Formats: sequence, structure tokens, C-alpha cells
Amino acid sequence: MKINVIDIIDFLKTDILNVFGCVDNAAIKHIRAPQFVDKDTLDWVNSNKKEKQLIAESSKAKIIIVDKGVKYSETLKLQNKIIIQVENPKLVIALIAGKFFTPKFISSIHKSSFIHKDAKIHSSVYIGPNCTIGNCIIGENTIIYSNVTIYDDVKIGSNVIIQAGTVIGTDGLGCDRKKDGTLVKFPHFGIVEICDNVEIGANCQIARGALSNTIIGEGSKINGLCFIAHNCVLGKNVLITGSTMLAGSVKIEDNVTIYSKVIIRDQIIIGKGATIGMGAVVTKNIPLNEIWIGSPAKKINNG
Amino acid sequence: MKINVIDIIDFLKTDILNVFGCVDNAAIKHIRAPQFVDKDTLDWVNSNKKEKQLIAESSKAKIIIVDKGVKYSETLKLQNKIIIQVENPKLVIALIAGKFFTPKFISSIHKSSFIHKDAKIHSSVYIGPNCTIGNCIIGENTIIYSNVTIYDDVKIGSNVIIQAGTVIGTDGLGCDRKKDGTLVKFPHFGIVEICDNVEIGANCQIARGALSNTIIGEGSKINGLCFIAHNCVLGKNVLITGSTMLAGSVKIEDNVTIYSKVIIRDQIIIGKGATIGMGAVVTKNIPLNEIWIGSPAKKINNG
Amino acid sequence: MKINVIDIIDFLKTDILNVFGCVDNAAIKHIRAPQFVDKDTLDWVNSNKKEKQLIAESSKAKIIIVDKGVKYSETLKLQNKIIIQVENPKLVIALIAGKFFTPKFISSIHKSSFIHKDAKIHSSVYIGPNCTIGNCIIGENTIIYSNVTIYDDVKIGSNVIIQAGTVIGTDGLGCDRKKDGTLVKFPHFGIVEICDNVEIGANCQIARGALSNTIIGEGSKINGLCFIAHNCVLGKNVLITGSTMLAGSVKIEDNVTIYSKVIIRDQIIIGKGATIGMGAVVTKNIPLNEIWIGSPAKKINNG
Repeated sequence: MKINVIDIIDFLKTDILNVFGCVDNAAIKHIRAPQFVDKDTLDWVNSNKKEKQLIAESSKAKIIIVDKGVKYSETLKLQNKIIIQVENPKLVIALIAGKFFTPKFISSIHKSSFIHKDAKIHSSVYIGPNCTIGNCIIGENTIIYSNVTIYDDVKIGSNVIIQAGTVIGTDGLGCDRKKDGTLVKFPHFGIVEICDNVEIGANCQIARGALSNTIIGEGSKINGLCFIAHNCVLGKNVLITGSTMLAGSVKIEDNVTIYSKVIIRDQIIIGKGATIGMGAVVTKNIPLNEIWIGSPAKKINNG
Repeated sequence: MKINVIDIIDFLKTDILNVFGCVDNAAIKHIRAPQFVDKDTLDWVNSNKKEKQLIAESSKAKIIIVDKGVKYSETLKLQNKIIIQVENPKLVIALIAGKFFTPKFISSIHKSSFIHKDAKIHSSVYIGPNCTIGNCIIGENTIIYSNVTIYDDVKIGSNVIIQAGTVIGTDGLGCDRKKDGTLVKFPHFGIVEICDNVEIGANCQIARGALSNTIIGEGSKINGLCFIAHNCVLGKNVLITGSTMLAGSVKIEDNVTIYSKVIIRDQIIIGKGATIGMGAVVTKNIPLNEIWIGSPAKKINNG
Repeated sequence: MKINVIDIIDFLKTDILNVFGCVDNAAIKHIRAPQFVDKDTLDWVNSNKKEKQLIAESSKAKIIIVDKGVKYSETLKLQNKIIIQVENPKLVIALIAGKFFTPKFISSIHKSSFIHKDAKIHSSVYIGPNCTIGNCIIGENTIIYSNVTIYDDVKIGSNVIIQAGTVIGTDGLGCDRKKDGTLVKFPHFGIVEICDNVEIGANCQIARGALSNTIIGEGSKINGLCFIAHNCVLGKNVLITGSTMLAGSVKIEDNVTIYSKVIIRDQIIIGKGATIGMGAVVTKNIPLNEIWIGSPAKKINNG
């Protein structure tokens, strides 16, 4: 596989600040780890590195994505390198990889997966082996890996990715005790709604709402082994990096970042753009854009 | 579906304090979230609300479950509402939902599930797709969702619910090190016993005992992503709300409540009726009825 | 089944300090919990017990593994017991159980499992029901339980055990945000390498590397519900007892012990032989042989 640099430039459009060097007929074949970079690699220099100029000049690649900290030096010129300046090279590499290097899935439902007869599944969907799909709606281009279980009454949008082993739509397990200690489970009549462009990691559980719905907002990304309890409502572009639990009826606003192994108490509200550090035990509402860490979680001053 | 109020009253029996209004021919069709309540809804007023009288008088439902804080006012009378007074409306709604609104499973073993030839499975059991069931005993009316794995030598009682993806009966992984660092796994000859009326959430792991058994006591409810290690013994009606781990040989007495993302050290004993707050790291035995929180967990005074 | 003591002695070789009593024709049938010990049991006395002599003298077993704290007393002689002295009886029992009492798996791939046509799987491998195995390499005598998903480009060594429900080789979920908050996932072109003699518990997730590889070193044992993120590199004989998460690019050196429900920040390095207590939140590198606990984790003095 060969990708012309001209096509990459065309794809990035206004994300590019400058292009140095001659791009005619230039092409790349792959993106690789630093130690495996060769002349066909699209290389890049992370903005947070020191000695960025030196990294670019030492690269074996012909084509390198950099930020404005790297100049088109005489050395780079003599090496005939092509330098593409952007604001955030890491983000741009991720965009290019997503566009040009993501494996394409062929629309299909594996013969070993069981689909409810009334489920409405778009013809472009990929469902891997050994899945169980209840009476659901699944939108365009969604990819469901193997051993996933979707219970009835789950609505999944377009371009969603669900990694293997995840379970969506179980009852929650809110219980009251009778006087003799017996636990009585509260009913769960709500549904789960997974909006467009969401990704969910492996071996998660997302519970349905008790009376209202559990909602994962557009573009949110939840990594593996997370448990999203009944009635949680996540806004857009929420990032949860793994092994985190949101207890019942937690509300997360847009653009929140939650690092790994966090627990958030039921009914808590996390304000837009807030960040929660790994291992935090969150017992209070967090206002927008604040950073909280610790057990119990407290605001840190990051000014 | 229509359920006569007279049948609900008959089911609740002595749980009812008072019924106001004319119940002849009155019926309900569903239980719903507040915003979707209509005249056919069985509505209820949670005891922890303020303005309970107002909530009842504003409800669009004809039939409402309340506690003694709500009086059968002139307004309610004029609205021809039926008011059922109970001590704990939330509990009563859960009981009614469990009795009248729980989906019935048809006894069956899905053709894609593999059952050990010597397993003893009651004819009333439901086993969903893609399960693997070893040489086990499974009692009456138990429901096992899809992708569940039960290893050999697991004994499951009656009316048990196991959500998708859960794994029961693996070895534990207690290891000793040789002098050169090599890890040697201790053998696991014990079994797992899941008693009657237990519910286990999705994607849990319950390990078998090393030499004695791992036991989940009658009526206990364990939510998703929990790990119950080898030789743990849980009493009756233990509630674990999710993402919690009990290390080896932990003993939990009856009616204990353990909130989410707790870790309890091996060999620890939790006394009857104790409560452990979310995210707690429990390194000491907890006496009966105490409440412990934090990392490491400490008693809180709640008097 | 009957195992001659002479064969056990032959297997243990130099691990034995002394054998007392007449071993001719002596044999055992099983290893059991203390309360179920009978004359055919291979019994043992844990080194950390008080009154070890009394335990040995009270045992109903004929053959007992002990440390040097137990003498071959007149009582033991009169009981015609066989006493095998070793340095660490628990370790020796584990070795004997592993050699003589581990169930043998018949090499086979269950008909319900789906294997990529180009996968290279050794003929001695056991793969249980409902697995999905991508384009992988799997070595000799490896055992994969049911409902396991292995993505493409995973290399698994010999004598590896993977418990049910585990998922290996997913993308990581490192994301950058665009200015409007949109999350863009970084590509994952690395592989996962599981070395020889590794065991992985149930319902884990092990992510592939972003550009370089995720590696689980030889002889390491990871219990259930662990999440090993992209680019983590574990050395030899690392023990993780369950429900732990290693964030991206964590490096764990040989012989490290990590107890349950730990979270380790990305890029952290844990030195050889270090120990991390349960529930720890590790935000700093840990030097070799140190013991760290707490949130955030700190060194404890154990001298």
C-alpha cells in the first residue's frame, strides 16, 4: 500500500501550517514506532519532546510531521526531506491513521451470532462471532466485535465500535431491603442509548435505566472494564480511560476526561470540561473545567 | 396488559397500611418514569422527597403508592385517585414490579450453548446463547444469560440470575515463589456454591476454593465486574453494588452492604449488617453494623 | 488414582531436606482441606502456623509435608507416619499438585470456536467453546478456556493458560482532543506478546501496542478482571492478584508482586522485586525491592 503525500495534504487541509520540500510523487507506506522507522514511514515529532529539531534531522523517514518548533533547516533541505508543519503532530498522525490505515470491516453478521428477529440492524453493520443481540436498533457502519451481548431495548447509533466481551442493557441492581434483610431489586424499564461515534472497550457492563434511560453521548470513548450503572447520562466527547465505574444516575457533561479506576457516587454531576485523576473516589459534584484527584477527590490548583 | 388493583392489594397483604378511594374495577398498565406517567401508570412517591403531598396531587396517575406523609386530601378525593399507603413506597413498587412486570423466561437451553454430559440441570432452567456449562448442578428457575462460563464442580441453586459474560469456578491464583522468582500456583480443589435467589451481574469472576469452598449465600446480590476470589464465604442477603473485589478467604456475614469499587484484603471478616463505602480499601475486620469508608478504611461515626 | 510416595520423592529431589518413616509401598490418593483429611490424603503443615508439631501429630493422614520446625517425634513414629521435611511445605504442595493433580486437557479446538485461516496454532493446544482467534501464533500445550477473544497479531507462547472471557489484542484508546472537543483515537499498530508459562485470569483486557508492543514476560501470572493497557512491558514472574489496571507504557521488571485493585499511571517503571499493596494508586517510579502502599502510593519501611 502506498499513499501519496498530496492526498494526505488534501485530507488535512487547514490543519496544515506549512509544507516544506517537494511533494510531487512523494508517498508513504506506513506509520511505525521510532525504532522501526524507514524511508517509507510517515514519521512525526511529538510536541512534548525536547530536541525536536535533532529528532527530525536524525529520522530515517523522508516525510515528517512536526510542529512550529522544527525549522526547515539546511540539514533537512540537504536530506531532501518533506516537512509538514501542524499545530499538534500527534493529533494529525491519529487523524491520518484513522483515515488511511484503519482496517475496513466487511458488512456482515457472523453465522454464530444470534440476532433477535425484530432487531433493526443497518445493512452496513459488522457483527463478529458469538454475539447475542436482543431486540435492538443498530445504525450505519457500527462494528461489534465477538462475544458481545446486547440485551433488548438498546439503541446504538452509527459508527459505533464495541470491543469484545462487552455487555449492554442488563438490569441495574438497585435494591431495597425488607425488614428481615431480604434484598428486593428495583425494576428496570429504561433503555440504553449509545449515540453516534461512540467507542466502548472490552468486557464493560452498561446497565439500562430504572425508569428513565442510560445515555452515552456522541463521540464519547470508554475503554475496557468500565461499569456504567443505570440512568447515567454522558454528554458528548467524554473520555474514560478504563476500569472506571459510574454509579447510578451520574451525569457527565461534554468534554469531560476521566482517567482510570475512578469511582463516582450515584447522582453526582461532573461539569463540562472537568478532569478526574486516576483512582479518584468522587463524592461531590465537580464544577466545569476543574481538575479533581484523590480519595475522596478534591480540587487541585493547576493555575 | 392490565393488572387489577385488587390483585395488587391481595399480593401486598399486610404491607399495606391503608387504601383510600374506590378500587372496584380499577387497574394499571405500567410503571414509568415521572415524566412519562399517565392515567394508566402505577405511580409512587419516594419517602425521601419533600412536598410529597404536592407530588401525589400533581400526578397524572389514578393510582399512587405513598407513605403516611401523604394524606387523602380533599384534592385527592376530588381527583378520584386511589391512594395506597405503605411504609416504604420504593420497596413496594419493587415488589410489585418483581411480581407483575418481570419478563418470563421460557425454560430452554440455547442450541449454541455447550453443557457437560453429566451436568444436572433442572428442566425449568433458562440458558442463553454461547454459554459453556461444565459438570455442574443447576436448580429450578435459574436464568443464565449469554456468554456465561461455568467451570466444573459448581453448584447453583434455584431462582438464581447470572448476567452475561460472567465466569464462575476458575482456579484462584494464589502463588508461592521459588527462590529464583518462579511463581508456583497453589492447587484449587474446592468448588463454588451459589445459593438460592442469588443474582450476579455481568462480566464477574468467581473463583473456586483452594481446598475448601467458595460460597455465595442465599439472596445475595452482586453487581457487575466483581471478582470474588477463592474460598470467600458470603452470608445471606449480602449486597455488592459493582466493581468490587474480595481477596481470598474473605468472610462476609449476613445483610452486609458493600458499595462499589471496594477491595477487601484476604482473610478479613465483615460483621453482620456492616456497610462499606465505595472505593474503600479494607485491611481490618469490621464489627457488626459499623460503617467504614476510605483508604485504608476506617469506621465513621454515624450516631 | 494412587500416587506412590517414592514417585513424589523422586519428583521433588533436592527440594527435600529429610524423609522419616518407611516409604516402601506408601501411596496417597488426594490433597484436601484440613477438615476432610483422611489416611489417603497428602497432608501438610503451613510454616506460618503455631503448634506445628501438634498439627502433624493430630493429622489423620499417613504422609505429611512439614518444615524443619516439626521433629520426627516418638508420637509420629508410633503412628507409623511418613514425614517429609522441606523448606516451604506450601510451595512443595503446590508443586506436587501441579505435577500429579492437574487435569490434563486433550489437545483440541472446539467446533464452536472460530480460528483465522492463517493462524498458526500448535497441534497440542486446547481451545474451548465459543472462542474467536484472529491471525495469531499459539505455542505448545497452551490452554484457552471458553469465550476468549484473541484479535489479530497476538503471539502466545507455550504452556500459557488463558481463563474464560478474556480479550487480548484490542486497540488501546489513547485519544487526543480537537479544539472542539472531538476525541481522535491514536492508531495501534503494535502487537501483543504473551510469553511462555504465563497465566491470565478471566475477563481481562490486554491492549495491543500503539507503535511498539505490549509484552507479558515469561512465567508471569495475572488474575482476573485486570486491564493491561497499550505498550505495557512486564518482565518475568510478575504476579498481579486481580482487578488491577496498568495504564499505557507501564514497565514492570522481574519478580514484582502487585496486589489487587491497583492502578499504575502511564509511563511508570516498577523496579525488580518490588511489591505494591492492594488498592494502591501509583504515580511515581518504584525502585527495586521496595514496598509501596496507599493513595497516592508511598514507600513503607519494612526493616
